[in-house]
Amino acid sequence: MWNPLPSTGVNSFFLDTFIFHLCFLSQLCLVFWSDYGLVIMSDPFLSIRRSGTSESSMEPLLHQLGQRLIRCAPRTLICRKYTHGNGNGADHPSTGSSHTTPVLLVSRLYQPANLREVGQESRQAGEMTCKSQRLMQQAGLIHPSNPGCYYYLPATVRAMEKLVRLIDQEMQGIGGQKLDMPSLCSAELWRSSERWDLMGKELFRLQDRHGVDYCLGPTHEEAVTTLVAHQASLSYRQLPILLYQITRKFRDEPKPRFGLLRGREFYMKDMYSFDVSEEAARHTYDSVCQAYGRLFSRLGLRCLRVQADAGNIGGTLSHEFQLPADIGEDRLLVCGGCSFAANEETLAPGETDCPRCPAGPLAESKGIEVGHTFYLGTKYSRVFNATFSNHQNRPVVSEMGCYGLGVTRILAAAVEVMSTEEAIRWPGLLAPYQVCVVPPKKGSKGSEEGAAQTEGLVHALLGGLPRLRGEVALDDRTQMTIGRRLKDAVRLGYPYVVVVGQGAQEETPRFEVICQQTDETMFLSKDQLVDLLGRVETV
Amino acid sequence: MWNPLPSTGVNSFFLDTFIFHLCFLSQLCLVFWSDYGLVIMSDPFLSIRRSGTSESSMEPLLHQLGQRLIRCAPRTLICRKYTHGNGNGADHPSTGSSHTTPVLLVSRLYQPANLREVGQESRQAGEMTCKSQRLMQQAGLIHPSNPGCYYYLPATVRAMEKLVRLIDQEMQGIGGQKLDMPSLCSAELWRSSERWDLMGKELFRLQDRHGVDYCLGPTHEEAVTTLVAHQASLSYRQLPILLYQITRKFRDEPKPRFGLLRGREFYMKDMYSFDVSEEAARHTYDSVCQAYGRLFSRLGLRCLRVQADAGNIGGTLSHEFQLPADIGEDRLLVCGGCSFAANEETLAPGETDCPRCPAGPLAESKGIEVGHTFYLGTKYSRVFNATFSNHQNRPVVSEMGCYGLGVTRILAAAVEVMSTEEAIRWPGLLAPYQVCVVPPKKGSKGSEEGAAQTEGLVHALLGGLPRLRGEVALDDRTQMTIGRRLKDAVRLGYPYVVVVGQGAQEETPRFEVICQQTDETMFLSKDQLVDLLGRVETV
Repeated sequence: MWNPLPSTGVNSFFLDTFIFHLCFLSQLCLVFWSDYGLVIMSDPFLSIRRSGTSESSMEPLLHQLGQRLIRCAPRTLICRKYTHGNGNGADHPSTGSSHTTPVLLVSRLYQPANLREVGQESRQAGEMTCKSQRLMQQAGLIHPSNPGCYYYLPATVRAMEKLVRLIDQEMQGIGGQKLDMPSLCSAELWRSSERWDLMGKELFRLQDRHGVDYCLGPTHEEAVTTLVAHQASLSYRQLPILLYQITRKFRDEPKPRFGLLRGREFYMKDMYSFDVSEEAARHTYDSVCQAYGRLFSRLGLRCLRVQADAGNIGGTLSHEFQLPADIGEDRLLVCGGCSFAANEETLAPGETDCPRCPAGPLAESKGIEVGHTFYLGTKYSRVFNATFSNHQNRPVVSEMGCYGLGVTRILAAAVEVMSTEEAIRWPGLLAPYQVCVVPPKKGSKGSEEGAAQTEGLVHALLGGLPRLRGEVALDDRTQMTIGRRLKDAVRLGYPYVVVVGQGAQEETPRFEVICQQTDETMFLSKDQLVDLLGRVETV
Repeated sequence: MWNPLPSTGVNSFFLDTFIFHLCFLSQLCLVFWSDYGLVIMSDPFLSIRRSGTSESSMEPLLHQLGQRLIRCAPRTLICRKYTHGNGNGADHPSTGSSHTTPVLLVSRLYQPANLREVGQESRQAGEMTCKSQRLMQQAGLIHPSNPGCYYYLPATVRAMEKLVRLIDQEMQGIGGQKLDMPSLCSAELWRSSERWDLMGKELFRLQDRHGVDYCLGPTHEEAVTTLVAHQASLSYRQLPILLYQITRKFRDEPKPRFGLLRGREFYMKDMYSFDVSEEAARHTYDSVCQAYGRLFSRLGLRCLRVQADAGNIGGTLSHEFQLPADIGEDRLLVCGGCSFAANEETLAPGETDCPRCPAGPLAESKGIEVGHTFYLGTKYSRVFNATFSNHQNRPVVSEMGCYGLGVTRILAAAVEVMSTEEAIRWPGLLAPYQVCVVPPKKGSKGSEEGAAQTEGLVHALLGGLPRLRGEVALDDRTQMTIGRRLKDAVRLGYPYVVVVGQGAQEETPRFEVICQQTDETMFLSKDQLVDLLGRVETV
């Protein structure tokens, strides 16, 4: 079905709505029939030529060219290369050439903005209690399942994959190594640390077919410490060890709410450090806090580091990373005169003055906790006997720290603090797609020329800006007006929306560019636009 | 602590073991003290200069240069840039410049080859029942936790991330869109499909704090069908929809064994398709099977597609993708005359002749099931009322398919069928690191020159071959002989091992290159080596 055909000298078919230039590279070429016409696609490039003719009228031509017509069910594929029109693109099977990423056709994206609020699952999931939940549900980014559990729909998975890459960069930048630990944690392990009883109802518990008790790990201090303890000969020269994972975690919240902000299943980055001494462990602690700071700064999120309670994790030193927000469930007290900030629960009742400077009363604020760091000392390493050999070759118990980042919570918190009431705004690096191109309505005045302009533009973007491959969405729902599609694009928060409107048909074509991060609108030539988008940061 | 300093005109310090040329770019430069000497690192490049002098003797020089000495705990970091020696490299904090990937220092990789076999977890995990389990455990790629549950250690996570990228390419190549569904599946949902009872003890079941029943999803037919059913207006024009996820799955195997081949927690890619008709659904079915074929072919794995039983998933058409292997738990019957192959359980007892051709008796074989496809018809879509509007705007029940790939199982199965008894072999694309460079033993004859050669070589590889960034490991354990480190490298299965031995000190330096995939050994100049490694495929 997917036989690739040798490319030949064809260079002119006629057209339906858009004209595409077929690249005559000495590459394979794919021809197929769809109910919108004949499509010829050369690999590995972006070019398609689609004909509006009927199958029968094309066949002789193809025969003449020594090519064989391939039938193919319409709309089988989202393009991985540039396809167009009503979404019936096809793709040359991947042959190992790595970067054949595409334009996304908006009509094909599974981001249903019309998910019914029916079924017990949805009702159980409760009211839409905050802006990020409402916006993300309405936009088809998430969909409620059981209480506190959500489907992450494709655009959200893209945003999350970007966030994971950023976190990987920052964690590996300070020496973190990524591993993956089982979700099923044995009761035996958790009884050793006394957390089996301590965690109470927050822990999801289950038994296997042999009646053995397990919990679903909300954090993995026990698991990672026992892993490191198993290493027979760990030398002081090998420390610090920083191990982290980015996995799904479980917590049976009494009152799941606020969408991804307080769920019962969520993705978390949890890192654990093992050091030779308290001094070294505090140094590691600082370097993780600094990496967190860099992460939030790259995301453009203002994040407060506040002194915090160690809760049931334990340890003697702890900080939370808080995004100030009205719906935040944590009450913070922040000094205007110095960098002091604290979770209210760490202060004595009635303590309102800054303990570090004479600036006077602390200001109250609310925050969403997106990260938490703990210096654990030897709380876990003592229990599981996680030791290393010191200079004198004697066993010494490691000093530990643990460090969490709420991955799905960061996504939702960013949407919460950056969005307007009606429109989603993302940290630039996390937007599922950087650019949305909106061509004219089919059949409108100048729509054919506009379509050709669109084609040239997308070609220029993908050809000239490799970093934008996979980042450009084309709103091909050309049965709709530009205005209606623009409204969608604004609501979904693409950082750059490019409208191919009247200006594109002037002698010097100009594209309307809406920079949603800065609320600027500009009219740019193709070259200026490529220049602008060439400066977009991606991860 | 991490203050970056402006680079200055320093260009000569003396040295400890290796000499590095400091790049005098107009870049920031980082200076720190470690217990091995003073290190100066310029960003964004690979250069380090390390001095063997004491801190005090360096200080005046630095003062004279207007630089400030920065103290820094030794061995804080795995390099993200090129560091050397005993692993005490440091890193300039990531500032958003994306690709500052490094040489990995083998001494720093958390791949403990000496994990003790102690603790009840390990005993419970049972004997090492097959080659892949033994090799992967001995090499520190995995470590047993609870029965059928494993820690995936960092090198395995790298291999798995590569496999996930490959699967993403192939699934998105046929129009698949990636989402992520909750692990907690409500009993109510599973009772609707009657699988709550049907699955018996294989299902991990639990109750939340309110006494509501859940299972941990081993597959997600119910969840995805109810999601698609919730879309209020789904037109025939929007079909097919192909949704997939790559997530951790749970199955309470009666007898977990063979390491990652039959576990109770594992990663699976599960895709679900929704089509307008049986014909369209069968077309989608074929295109998924072809994508699976391409995936295994890119991995260099010989994979049989055999007719299979639909088991408790249901449906009327089903195939397994099987890797022939002695330890395989499935018995296959394969025709020598045509492409017919079947799982024994689908044939009538005693049926030994090929039903499709007169070639005669079928040959017996054993296989490891790595993929499974099902044409489901309307089994689930009927139950959950997953409909679309047809041409006449009337609701019609979708035709479904589902398609699994065992992600962690593919990793282990590949190791099982490709490795020797003593040495791991990976599909080239999945090897955690493509290249391992082995410099001479410290203090051996010509070791200083060898070290300089190594530095030049690594510089050339990383500078000239961007695709190899992050793929080059440097075995810096120079207290060990080349032979001993070479043995490790052979055992761990780096596709290319480069030894900087005697040949590197000849007038025309030659590096010994062991291509482990083909068992060839070559002696190449630096340019030839760069040329060879420039052709390495990565994902």
